[in-house]
Formats: sequence, structure tokens, C-alpha cells
Amino acid sequence: MEFARIASAYEGELNYLTKRIAAMGGHAERMVEQAIAALVHADPALARKVVEDDAVLDEAQREVDDKAIVIIARRQPMAVDLREVIGAIRISADLERVGDLAKNVAKRVAAVAEVGQPARLFRGIEALAELALAQLKQVLDVYASRSVDKLGFVRDRDGEIDAMYTSLFRELLTHMMEDPRNITPCTHLLFCAKNIERIGDHATNIAETIYHIVTGEQMPAERPKGDKTDRVTAPH
Amino acid sequence: MEFARIASAYEGELNYLTKRIAAMGGHAERMVEQAIAALVHADPALARKVVEDDAVLDEAQREVDDKAIVIIARRQPMAVDLREVIGAIRISADLERVGDLAKNVAKRVAAVAEVGQPARLFRGIEALAELALAQLKQVLDVYASRSVDKLGFVRDRDGEIDAMYTSLFRELLTHMMEDPRNITPCTHLLFCAKNIERIGDHATNIAETIYHIVTGEQMPAERPKGDKTDRVTAPH
Repeated sequence: MEFARIASAYEGELNYLTKRIAAMGGHAERMVEQAIAALVHADPALARKVVEDDAVLDEAQREVDDKAIVIIARRQPMAVDLREVIGAIRISADLERVGDLAKNVAKRVAAVAEVGQPARLFRGIEALAELALAQLKQVLDVYASRSVDKLGFVRDRDGEIDAMYTSLFRELLTHMMEDPRNITPCTHLLFCAKNIERIGDHATNIAETIYHIVTGEQMPAERPKGDKTDRVTAPH
Repeated sequence: MEFARIASAYEGELNYLTKRIAAMGGHAERMVEQAIAALVHADPALARKVVEDDAVLDEAQREVDDKAIVIIARRQPMAVDLREVIGAIRISADLERVGDLAKNVAKRVAAVAEVGQPARLFRGIEALAELALAQLKQVLDVYASRSVDKLGFVRDRDGEIDAMYTSLFRELLTHMMEDPRNITPCTHLLFCAKNIERIGDHATNIAETIYHIVTGEQMPAERPKGDKTDRVTAPH
């Protein structure tokens, strides 16, 4: 009876962490959506809102960390339970970073808005952000359901994001070469695109953490992740 | 007697973490130095070495994490001891990120080398890297000595790094506008400069963690840190 009571209090604590992470995930998704909307519609008020919203994730991360440490020290969890608590610390750190990246995009809204840019460049940014957000949402769904067999999409989506980012990178370079007036806003758009690509990387990190929580193994690496533009050069 | 034996084994474990962090710090510094040297001297072999060296920090971070979790679960440390262990986890994560940033610089060496760039741009990158490295070295010295009263330099250095990064950002934009052939290599140099600026941010994070370990308080924030270029536009 006593044991059941302790076990259930413990489960309550783990559930609390899981719920907190889910809320952080929803908040981070919204920040990304709004940062992209602020960029595409040159909306400085929405951009400011995103910058201010970041404090919520910083606070939530600190809270998850503190709670997790207390659980480890008090309950001395083992095996899957320990992985669950450590996993919560890692995932909340990734979500906090996603919030930072959304904030970075929002902070560039003014510099990009100064010179109007062609709609197709914004469509490219939007499409990239949609992919990264879809990746993040699916990963958070898997965190909620623990159905790691569904994590196969992560690698494919990673490949799509990399390919789209590389093509956008090339397009932005080309656009800069067409007219020097495009150089400043396109440089800021390049940093925005880079931030979005990194959101995809954090989604992949989260997928790897979930896989490790559930299976105790490292997720098999099929391909190296990350920026493929480091050798991209535009025609000149 | 028994208590003294346990306390001393515990101290040994904490010392192990501290030593591991110091070694990670030295490794990260070397990676940054070599990445900048590879960039400035267009040395692809040195760049490859830096990329390969990154695995050492990834492994060290995992080891520090695992060790720290075992200490928390077994010893249930309190107050300054708990802050010490959690601090080790945070600092090793920052140092691992510094290694990633050095690797990112190294991966751009080839794209920058393709078109020769004026020496003054490289001097700007070198000067920025020297500041960031000095910041990192001083912070790691404070970690070794725990003399947090010496952390005052962090804010000043932060300001210098921001100012130098902003001026380099402007200079690179201007250089791109002078000749479209500069656009591709200067874009990669912009990303390199951004990576170096972020190394400074991680040094500041580490300073804040050390302050918290020693005092139990948050380091007083005098000024917001981070990228001030998000509104920088070049003359056009």
C-alpha cells in the first residue's frame, strides 16, 4: 500500500514533467509561426510579441530542470524512469533553443522590411518554416504517444529541410548578385533561413532523445544531419 | 571515520568532473584557434582536423552527463554540491557547443578560399576570435580558481565583442556591395563571424553558471547580451 502510494506520487511527478514539456512545445510552435508571419507580413508589433514571449520558455526550462533534479535526488530513478527525467531536461533545453531561434527571426523583421523583397523569397522562407514546424509537431506527438516506431519520418523530413535550405541559400545569393540593394535584406533573410534550419535540427535532437527514453538505445544514424550549404557558391 | 571516507570519495568524484571540464575547455579553445587559422591561411587539412576533433567533445559531454547523474542519484548532494554537479552538466554543454561552432567555421574554409578576400577582412575575423577566445580562457580560469570576484571583465568583454561583430558585419556587407564576386565568400565569412560571436555568448553563459555555483545567486544582468546586428543595414 505504502509502496503503491509512493509509486503513484512518483508517476504524478513524471506526468507533471511530461505535461510541462508538451506546453513548452505548443508555446515554441506558436512562437515560430508568429515569427514567420511577422517576417512575411512585415509586422513589427507581432515581432515584438514573439521577442517578449521568449521569457516564458526560459522560465519553463528552469522549472523543468529544478523539478527533474529534485526527482533524481529524492527518487533515485533507474533505467527507463531515469531516462525519462534526463530526457525531459534535454527536450526542454531543445525547446528553449527553438524559442530563441524564433526570437532571432523576429528581431530581423525590421531590417528585412526596410527594402521590399520579392514574394517568392518569402514563399521559400515560409515553405522551409512549414517543414521545420511539421517536423517539430510530429516529434512532439511521438513524445506524447511514445510510439517511436513512427520516428522514421524524421530522417526523410531532415533531408527535405536540408535540400530546401540549400536551394533557398542559393536563391538568396543569386538575388543579392542581381542588385546590391538586395544585399542587406537578403543577408538578414539568410540568417532567418539558417535559424529555421536549426529549428529542424532541434526537432531531430528531440526525436533522438525520445528514441533513447523508450528503447535505451541510440537512434541509428543513417545520414549526417545539419547544414549542407557550407560549400555552396553562387554562379559568378 | 566512515563519514570521512565517503566524503572524500565524493570529493574525488566532484574533482573528476572539474578536471574533465578543464580538459574540455582546453580542447574547445584549441579547436577555435585552429579553425580560425585554417580560415585565415586557407588550410583545408587543418580544417578537416578541426571537424574530426569535434567528436572528442561530444564524447566528453556524454561522459560528464552520465557521471553527474550517478553522483546526484547516489549522493543526493545539496546546496553548493548540487550546484557544482548541475553546473558541470551546463558548462560541458556550453563547451560542446563551442566545439560545434569551431567546426562550423572550419567547414566553411573551402567556400571562403575559393575567391581570395582582402587581408583586412581576415584581420577583422581574427581580432573577433581573439576577443572571444580571451573571454573563454578567462572564464575557464575563474572556473579553476572559483574567484568569481574576477568575473567583472565578462560584461566589458561582451560589449567589445558585440561592437566588433557589428562593425565586421557592416564591413562585410559593404564589401559585398562593391563587387558581386565577393557575395558568396563574404556570406560564408558572415556566418563565421556569427559563429565566433556565439562562442562569446557561451563564454558568458559559463561565467553565469560559475557565479551561480559559487554564490547560489543569479549573476546581476547589466545589459542584454547577444547579436546587435539584427537591425544593421549597409549604405545603399
